[in-house]
Amino acid sequence: MYIKNAWYVAGWANEFGEALNRVVILEQPLVMYRKSDDKVVALEDRCPHRLLPLSKGKRIGDDVQCGYHGMTFNCEGACIRVPGQDNVPSSAYVCTFPVVEKNNIVFIWMGEKSKADEKLIFDMPEFNSNLWHVHQGDALHLKANYLNVAENLVDPAHVSFVHPTTLGNAASENVPVHVDTQGDVLVAWRWIRDAEPVGFFQKFGGFEGNVDRWHYYYLHLPSIAVIDFGSADTQLNLDEADRDKGVRIFALHFLTPVNEHYTIDRWLHIRNTAIDDEAASAQMDAMFRIAFNEDKEILEAIDEQEHLPQTRKPIRLAIDKGPTVYRRRIRDRVELETTEDLGEPVGSTFFHHE
Amino acid sequence: MYIKNAWYVAGWANEFGEALNRVVILEQPLVMYRKSDDKVVALEDRCPHRLLPLSKGKRIGDDVQCGYHGMTFNCEGACIRVPGQDNVPSSAYVCTFPVVEKNNIVFIWMGEKSKADEKLIFDMPEFNSNLWHVHQGDALHLKANYLNVAENLVDPAHVSFVHPTTLGNAASENVPVHVDTQGDVLVAWRWIRDAEPVGFFQKFGGFEGNVDRWHYYYLHLPSIAVIDFGSADTQLNLDEADRDKGVRIFALHFLTPVNEHYTIDRWLHIRNTAIDDEAASAQMDAMFRIAFNEDKEILEAIDEQEHLPQTRKPIRLAIDKGPTVYRRRIRDRVELETTEDLGEPVGSTFFHHE
Amino acid sequence: MYIKNAWYVAGWANEFGEALNRVVILEQPLVMYRKSDDKVVALEDRCPHRLLPLSKGKRIGDDVQCGYHGMTFNCEGACIRVPGQDNVPSSAYVCTFPVVEKNNIVFIWMGEKSKADEKLIFDMPEFNSNLWHVHQGDALHLKANYLNVAENLVDPAHVSFVHPTTLGNAASENVPVHVDTQGDVLVAWRWIRDAEPVGFFQKFGGFEGNVDRWHYYYLHLPSIAVIDFGSADTQLNLDEADRDKGVRIFALHFLTPVNEHYTIDRWLHIRNTAIDDEAASAQMDAMFRIAFNEDKEILEAIDEQEHLPQTRKPIRLAIDKGPTVYRRRIRDRVELETTEDLGEPVGSTFFHHE
Repeated sequence: MYIKNAWYVAGWANEFGEALNRVVILEQPLVMYRKSDDKVVALEDRCPHRLLPLSKGKRIGDDVQCGYHGMTFNCEGACIRVPGQDNVPSSAYVCTFPVVEKNNIVFIWMGEKSKADEKLIFDMPEFNSNLWHVHQGDALHLKANYLNVAENLVDPAHVSFVHPTTLGNAASENVPVHVDTQGDVLVAWRWIRDAEPVGFFQKFGGFEGNVDRWHYYYLHLPSIAVIDFGSADTQLNLDEADRDKGVRIFALHFLTPVNEHYTIDRWLHIRNTAIDDEAASAQMDAMFRIAFNEDKEILEAIDEQEHLPQTRKPIRLAIDKGPTVYRRRIRDRVELETTEDLGEPVGSTFFHHE
Repeated sequence: MYIKNAWYVAGWANEFGEALNRVVILEQPLVMYRKSDDKVVALEDRCPHRLLPLSKGKRIGDDVQCGYHGMTFNCEGACIRVPGQDNVPSSAYVCTFPVVEKNNIVFIWMGEKSKADEKLIFDMPEFNSNLWHVHQGDALHLKANYLNVAENLVDPAHVSFVHPTTLGNAASENVPVHVDTQGDVLVAWRWIRDAEPVGFFQKFGGFEGNVDRWHYYYLHLPSIAVIDFGSADTQLNLDEADRDKGVRIFALHFLTPVNEHYTIDRWLHIRNTAIDDEAASAQMDAMFRIAFNEDKEILEAIDEQEHLPQTRKPIRLAIDKGPTVYRRRIRDRVELETTEDLGEPVGSTFFHHE
Repeated sequence: MYIKNAWYVAGWANEFGEALNRVVILEQPLVMYRKSDDKVVALEDRCPHRLLPLSKGKRIGDDVQCGYHGMTFNCEGACIRVPGQDNVPSSAYVCTFPVVEKNNIVFIWMGEKSKADEKLIFDMPEFNSNLWHVHQGDALHLKANYLNVAENLVDPAHVSFVHPTTLGNAASENVPVHVDTQGDVLVAWRWIRDAEPVGFFQKFGGFEGNVDRWHYYYLHLPSIAVIDFGSADTQLNLDEADRDKGVRIFALHFLTPVNEHYTIDRWLHIRNTAIDDEAASAQMDAMFRIAFNEDKEILEAIDEQEHLPQTRKPIRLAIDKGPTVYRRRIRDRVELETTEDLGEPVGSTFFHHE
């Protein structure tokens, strides 16, 4: 179950170069590479002749020659050579997919080309600001459905239990969660006032006493999450809209659904502290790795359990409002896309809840 | 095809302690652990919220807290806490399963609780007698259906061919097999009179000349086997009922059906020789390991072959009486259990054929 | 999709000896071994009793005793012993398959025995001639359907692109391919006149200047290929029928379909140069290995891609005449075999195109 009319992340910019790179997104195999003008292109990774993936072939300039019989395709997907014959059959083409690079991230549009609006590509102003430090993290591979991974990213309630040493602690276990939606963004958030700082901010916040801390989970449909979390000295009695005055971190997750049981989560963070301090970046990465591997263990165990026969329906709780709204909206959009021509493209550049 | 109203073996007593232990029996995932009062409990290993196995969570005293969002269940399966809300939905529970520990073995009842009669739990007096030495062996994991494994344990005819160096030899190849049933126990047996001792008793019997030897295979429905085998000097002309006067060993097999293609066979033996001689125990284990791995190779090859398309029906022979009766009785009980409310529980404490 | 009334290759002669060897051909498990009179036999590898593969048993002279309960079968597949009973049920037999050894290759007939005509077994006179050197190569295992592998062997057009350093080069990319059929043999060929020698003949031909070179791909239904390739000095202006006057090599491929996704390609070559020079044989093997592993990579990638859902039909090109004719003929023969009693056996001894 995938929304097609949306920008998905195909990879970090530095994953693409001269080589022919096979990438699978929404079960669609693609061959991707960087042209001589530095633009990344994406073609269907399947020669229409004998089905060999074109990524097994080679580049002839900016074109791709199939490794089996030499059929050659240009970047528009048109066949420009069939060895052994002069005419090119009309069915000799491969599909192409719009690609845009932004903030060192390569986005790809998997649906109808006419709807591929670049203004819908995810962005946030902190990517290009002197006051913020952007640090590319890593790619986490999960044997899990992307919907379960995404739900985890609009779910502040799991933090106390899954990440007790890094991102959460017992103080937040019973604090209620607020949920709101605006356009194609869901946000679930909560504040924990006057509590001990969590492991992450013990290490990076330099706090002596208790803090006020927040978690805002933004989920941009279909599968990009921004987790705005931070802490400020309780003495400051920080207003919700003044989060920039605390130590504030945006942890971004770009989920790429590979297939129904495999998801890649590319993560990075943007912070207003320790600007240009790469040692701090490395320490934060280490902490994120601990936390995200905790999620991975949970999500893969759930994926396995979901494969077993189920005798009872799962139950829904008060804390599930974010995940429930998310899944319903995905389902509605997929139904629109697959039944009528009303499927508006999905996406949103940024959204900060005040 | 499983009988549910029966006691199965979940493990040796020493497999259970404080830790949350995931165990799968009859395809049912369970979380099992030992409470502070030393009793072992078994809960459905699936949180009803997001399906995370509870074995991925942690103990809070004798309760189990889910590792994802902290829902907490007591040993009766009732949910006693839902973080983030005060009320507990009526569907927030996990199933529980009766567990009884006896002779250092943990038994579990997989069917209707009202029928879980402890008197049906397998036992035999030799477990608690000065004249007998009980030695816990090991657990053999087989990629095979438990029915094929159980049939192997009511089948004296295979011993000559599968275990020629340990438990059988050519002298028994053509000796007929007797079969009898009593309640929920089948027994198949044969005597080989005045023959060379088999490898096992060459090593442990101290015989100089020929022996009379016996094999009694008891199969307690659904899946516990007792193999009573031994030898006595031929000169004694031993009566069938006087087997205690020979060197006599009970090899017990507790089969746990994990799923249709995976079975765990926990084995131990009880003997009337070399009492308290742990060196002899180790040597016997070594010989049993050879023999049981011979069975494993056969049974796994059959399981593979059964997965291929079959063009002809298998044939049945005179030696198959035990296996044939066994499978028919399992099929009948399963049908009773799944079609009417007449499914009497299955089990039997012990049965020695005279 | 397999033709059954045909001789397939079960292995090299030296793969069979005293041991019971499990071999799977057309999804049929076989136990094969060499009798005391040196003849190789093939029985169904499945005891009709409990389905244990007979290859898990042992030989009693030229007979095979099942490793589970000792049922014993002779080389005609008849059961000659059932331990524990005197009568042998009529259903106690295993199927047998005609086997013939020729040119150090073991052939097996997988269809109706009455049609197993030895005159149809593949042969060519160069196997037994002083002017030719026969060198047994190796067995290449491919996770691919044999039809795709066979098509690759009646397809001269792929050589320029898949084997640019060994068997092809750019000079042949656009040279047209001729295709002809004669009985159960297809042949696709082309000549490249006055071109640089390919890697193989640079190494083994000793040519100084340009050459005329040829590729004749003979595909004997269902799955034996002979690739006749060679080179001669362009100055000779060699006639097509005079290929023996050049440096000429026959690369033979005996494809054994194991199942729909697994094929074994046993290859050897016969040459009219470097007679008895085993160092040259080893060097040629090394080059063939490079080339055939290039094919393997292509064919396995195609097999994977064919498993994915397909939204468009593959296209066919001018160069596909050989493969297209081949697959149509296989399909026609299979349909004949499976619908009426008109299925003539398939095969042909040899065929050299002049």
